[in-house]
Amino acid sequence: MTQPGDPSERSLHPGAAEPPAASATTRPSAPPGPERRRLRGGAPIQIGLLGCGTVGGGVLRLLADKSANLAARAGAPLVVRRIAVRELDKQRVPECDPSLLTTDPDAVVSDPEIDLIVEVMGGEEPARELLARAMDRGKGVVTANKLLLAAHGPALLARAVERRVDLAFEGAAGGGIPIVRNLRESFASDRVERIVAILNGTCNYILTRMREGGASFAAALAEAQERGYAEADPTLDVDGHDAAHKLVVLAMLAFGARVAEGEVPVEGIRALEEADHRHADRFGYAIKHLAIGRDLGGTVELRVHPTLIPRRSVLANVSGVLNAVLVEGRALGPSLVYGRGAGDLPTAVSVVADIVDVARSIASGVAGMQTRGIALAERPLRPLAEVESRYYLRFTVADRPGVMGRLAGALGDAGVSIEHIVQEGEPQPGGASVDVVMVTHRAREGNVRAALAAIDSAAILDRPARLLRIEAV
Amino acid sequence: MTQPGDPSERSLHPGAAEPPAASATTRPSAPPGPERRRLRGGAPIQIGLLGCGTVGGGVLRLLADKSANLAARAGAPLVVRRIAVRELDKQRVPECDPSLLTTDPDAVVSDPEIDLIVEVMGGEEPARELLARAMDRGKGVVTANKLLLAAHGPALLARAVERRVDLAFEGAAGGGIPIVRNLRESFASDRVERIVAILNGTCNYILTRMREGGASFAAALAEAQERGYAEADPTLDVDGHDAAHKLVVLAMLAFGARVAEGEVPVEGIRALEEADHRHADRFGYAIKHLAIGRDLGGTVELRVHPTLIPRRSVLANVSGVLNAVLVEGRALGPSLVYGRGAGDLPTAVSVVADIVDVARSIASGVAGMQTRGIALAERPLRPLAEVESRYYLRFTVADRPGVMGRLAGALGDAGVSIEHIVQEGEPQPGGASVDVVMVTHRAREGNVRAALAAIDSAAILDRPARLLRIEAV
Repeated sequence: MTQPGDPSERSLHPGAAEPPAASATTRPSAPPGPERRRLRGGAPIQIGLLGCGTVGGGVLRLLADKSANLAARAGAPLVVRRIAVRELDKQRVPECDPSLLTTDPDAVVSDPEIDLIVEVMGGEEPARELLARAMDRGKGVVTANKLLLAAHGPALLARAVERRVDLAFEGAAGGGIPIVRNLRESFASDRVERIVAILNGTCNYILTRMREGGASFAAALAEAQERGYAEADPTLDVDGHDAAHKLVVLAMLAFGARVAEGEVPVEGIRALEEADHRHADRFGYAIKHLAIGRDLGGTVELRVHPTLIPRRSVLANVSGVLNAVLVEGRALGPSLVYGRGAGDLPTAVSVVADIVDVARSIASGVAGMQTRGIALAERPLRPLAEVESRYYLRFTVADRPGVMGRLAGALGDAGVSIEHIVQEGEPQPGGASVDVVMVTHRAREGNVRAALAAIDSAAILDRPARLLRIEAV
Repeated sequence: MTQPGDPSERSLHPGAAEPPAASATTRPSAPPGPERRRLRGGAPIQIGLLGCGTVGGGVLRLLADKSANLAARAGAPLVVRRIAVRELDKQRVPECDPSLLTTDPDAVVSDPEIDLIVEVMGGEEPARELLARAMDRGKGVVTANKLLLAAHGPALLARAVERRVDLAFEGAAGGGIPIVRNLRESFASDRVERIVAILNGTCNYILTRMREGGASFAAALAEAQERGYAEADPTLDVDGHDAAHKLVVLAMLAFGARVAEGEVPVEGIRALEEADHRHADRFGYAIKHLAIGRDLGGTVELRVHPTLIPRRSVLANVSGVLNAVLVEGRALGPSLVYGRGAGDLPTAVSVVADIVDVARSIASGVAGMQTRGIALAERPLRPLAEVESRYYLRFTVADRPGVMGRLAGALGDAGVSIEHIVQEGEPQPGGASVDVVMVTHRAREGNVRAALAAIDSAAILDRPARLLRIEAV
């Protein structure tokens, strides 16, 4: 095991605030890594668990339930040695041995007998600092913390490469969906061109209820909260930030892109109305909250927003709390994984799969094998104004003669051509409000926005226009 | 490298006809494997390719195209050293160096400099014998040969475990879909309870055309042949045997079940008519050709047949030549992967992902890591008569009064209860043929068959009844 300050390693003081090397690069010709504590046939891999909430409890259950099988897969028995928790005397799963508990996570990370740290405590700090310290001490690391990965993924990966330890995070992007493993391994020889993903179960549940049950956003949200699918404060989910965190993690794996999560354009689903679902359906679409990524060579395009997709596509039929990730590879073509994107047990299954992978590397004396060959580069984001898409536009207007012409004219002036226009209902006497819905041909978003600004300044709308993007899937 | 006859290994004479050990068992405490030819940092992994048709050509292209990246992932450059082909002077991809070609596959398998054999020649023999011999010589093996895996998968796996080499076959079950990797790794801590899969692109294309385009089976097949989605002799595909091969491979991974492919009940899609699609649609279903597997503890249930599934399910919306595998884990719940199940380039991507995995094991000195912990057991198949399902039954009858009562009565006598009955169209004067379609509640298939036999002997049908199973997905 490498002790901090070991002269054979460059110094990265545990817990120090300076950022680690910013870029994870490949080093096929690197000398063999430092000797770990053990390279022995069959001796147990000692695990330190940070956090023992519902995911942590699930991990303990799964480890106990299939211990013989997991030991056979890993090449060594898996033994939980210490568990860091916030409170000692809370009710826990029977698989949690109280004698292993400590309130000092540092003691777990510093324990020289521990080979592998599993972080299921959540939050940015102290999780980041603890994992960095564990890697500096030569320990393998497994985490399901998407917040952490979105904010510090590249730095943590760089540290793992530098320290020649494994960093696994299947649970951090899509809970139980094996997307990290797929992107890392199945696409090794391919180039990922596009990702289109449903990454937030709360949003997907709400949109499913709005579309199928005709519920309002507020009613569907309340129902999701009742069923435990949404938090009391649903902001992170319904405003799209949770999906953006996961998209940043996926972009790292799919495109090798280092992207600041704060720069990704994000829209949530609060503004959607039942009428939008009805109009979309009339045009043959369903509305889904999607995270979209494209590799454009120099730049990458990343965005998170409600999106119209063809009603009969597989993605449109992923309903309820399920998540799905569609990946398009140049050689492989389209490929999709779907499943439970959140939830304690599915996330625990992903964490245990990672534990087995990392334990196997350690037991085989090839720690760091999982992170080998990962190369990240800073990639500028394409500005949203330059994105090209088809658009759904909904205008609520007084039904005065000539309004439709003025709307279409403004779009035409901006170079946006229209594929369909539908005016809902019969003209009302007295000019009551009606919806005019348009679907455009492919256009630059900047041009569409310019047209909407012109329409807005002409004061012919009863309220701001609704713009939704249409994605071919 | 281990030479045949090396006294440190038990003798399994290359090419000998005796069956290898029948069961792959785990051996976590086994002594370390024999020394391989090299355990060197960064020296190339030498690859021998058996076959250089379209998949083989795709493999060469992908290896050349991303060589730096693949070397970084594998920890060593990947070099193709020899290529066995049937004819030397055929037109091949530019990445195929003619100086590497030989018509003697034995020379490739015997080459002591070769670390890894990639089999893309297809067929049972000599592929089986060549791979067995390669493993006996301590070489890692990658194959995309589903016929071989379905017939000899357990024996080949047992040999890999015994020889402590890797045997990887992602391309052998679902072409480009990363299902082997998922079952092996993501479900390591879970128990797979059910698999429901679309495993044959030809069948799925034909059924999609029949359902969406109203085509007859013959017309849809002709169209599939024109587009290159079906062979001139489509038997293996449309009669369901190709899907059965893949199901047997999946059952090995998902349930640890060793099953003889010939014992799996298989029905193809030749008998389906456009009317079946219309009736299914009326009841809210789509007809898909599915491979279904269930782990029932002692026995396993495996079957391949056209099946009604809810129209709005994800599986029902997997259209055209795409394949999909739905896996239900006890902890993970439902999870699905979909993509191009066949095709040269998708299969080549899977093969190259396997090459990287196996090369990484070899370069790290831990050959055999991929196959470690795989345990197979002989598992009896549940007889089809004991399967419980809901059923779609279509009776073509002369519209004489009382016929519906006699049909329902025969089913009731056999203990089969009916959920819906629909008689198509108006009664015709003179007793012209009409379709009576029923959907049953859950019933034992033996009971349903008994009722159909009784109905048949009563001579009230214009032609044999159509029975299709309904699966909840």
